[in-house]
Formats: sequence, C-alpha cells, structure tokens
Amino acid sequence: MIRRISHMGIAVKDLEAAIRLYRDVLGLQPVHRWVAEQDRMEACSFRVGDVEIELMQPLADDSPVGRFIARRGEGIHHVAFEVDDVADALGRAQAAGLETVDQAPRAGGDGRTLIGFLHPRSTSGVLMELEQDVRR
Amino acid sequence: MIRRISHMGIAVKDLEAAIRLYRDVLGLQPVHRWVAEQDRMEACSFRVGDVEIELMQPLADDSPVGRFIARRGEGIHHVAFEVDDVADALGRAQAAGLETVDQAPRAGGDGRTLIGFLHPRSTSGVLMELEQDVRR
Repeated sequence: MIRRISHMGIAVKDLEAAIRLYRDVLGLQPVHRWVAEQDRMEACSFRVGDVEIELMQPLADDSPVGRFIARRGEGIHHVAFEVDDVADALGRAQAAGLETVDQAPRAGGDGRTLIGFLHPRSTSGVLMELEQDVRR
Repeated sequence: MIRRISHMGIAVKDLEAAIRLYRDVLGLQPVHRWVAEQDRMEACSFRVGDVEIELMQPLADDSPVGRFIARRGEGIHHVAFEVDDVADALGRAQAAGLETVDQAPRAGGDGRTLIGFLHPRSTSGVLMELEQDVRR
C-alpha cells in the first residue's frame, strides 16, 4: 500500500534562513519555490535521495502552519507517504478506527496528486499525509 | 555531502500500539526490534522505500526519549541524514555557527555507523542526526 515517503514538511519561521541552512550548510539543492495561497504559506523544496523536504513559512499567524508554530514551535510538521490508492488507504484507516482529517480524497495543491490526512491524535503524534500520484 | 535520509525516529508511548498501526493499518513490515540499553528505550524499525522509520518507546521517564515526550508529546523525534564523512559534516556545521550536540563523531549503537547530532536550536526545530556508514 505504501510505496515510499514522498516528502516531509517542516514548519519554519524564516524561509530565507532555513534555505541557507539546507543549501549552504547541508549542501542540498533547492528544487522548487512557491506560494500556496490556499494554505497561506511560502514553501521551498529540496530533494534528498527519493524524498523531498518542504520548508514551509506561514504567511499569516492563523494559517495552518502559523498555528502549528504557535503551538509547538518550528519543526517537522507532517510526513507524506505515497500510496497506490488514497481512497482505499483512507477507508482502511477509518475502518481501523483512526481519525482522519479528510473524510475523502481531495486534490493536492500541485494538481498531480490526490491526498488525505490522518490526524496525529490517532497516529502517535505524527500528522500523516497519504498521497496518490494520479499520473501513474 | 548528504546521500539520503537514512531514518526517521518517532517517539511513542506504547510501542505495541504503534507497531499495530504501522504494520496492520499502514501495511509496513517490521525489520528489526531491539532494546537500546544506553538510550533506555525499546525500538522497532520499518522500511519504507529507502528510509527506515524507527519507533522508539522510552524505558524511563528521564531517558532522552522520555524527556522528549514529557516536553512535546509523541511525534517525530529526529531525522537522520547519511553523509559521506560525518567529521567533515560536523566541522562544516560548526564553522557555519550551528550548535552541535556532539563535538566530534561517536559510534552509533549498531556498530556500523559514526554519528553526530545537530541541535534543533540551530536547525529550525529539527533534531538532525548525521550518520556515516563505516562499512562503505
């Protein structure tokens, strides 16, 4: 059901400073930088092997990432698993009694994925994104 | 300098319950289960593509993972990057003004790695492990 970890989202207060860390100190190359209007955040991704690291800076304190930082501070916000079939994966999680943030799959921001989130309350504290590449 | 994300450590209160989640709901296969006396924790690893997920349950409240859970709750504890040369990577981080937990490389618990940690205070809240496979 799970193919791989597709990405890891990291909440940061200062995107420029975080980019300098990942690029200049860790030696990773930025892949893509964008503003996600819907999530009110600015993001920059880096590739590490098979996994992308997404640095996410909130553009408003009451945005999802802004609230996360207010509550828990900077750090890893979520982990995304690539699955073959996100509807099946969400249904399986619900059948097992897990709390899902999304009741059904929805389109990811990039137009090439279907996604659904599992709530950290039922996953030992890890906000998990299930992600299906619809181009496969 | 960084080859890949080698593993992600997740702090959990109840290892059995967490194993049921990753094995029975997410469909991942446990790879290895062990007690780390030095770190006073019990752990179980799963492989997802190129990355291992390590579930870590503290065996004492005042152990490193126990203190993490008391302070922040369950969740992702650290991310480990495989590097070619951990001494060089630590030195580069120190030269860039980052705070390192380890001043010099030390042996990993499994006898096949040299490791060093970067402090989350200087990495946007992410406890980072740098890991060199000494068998290469």
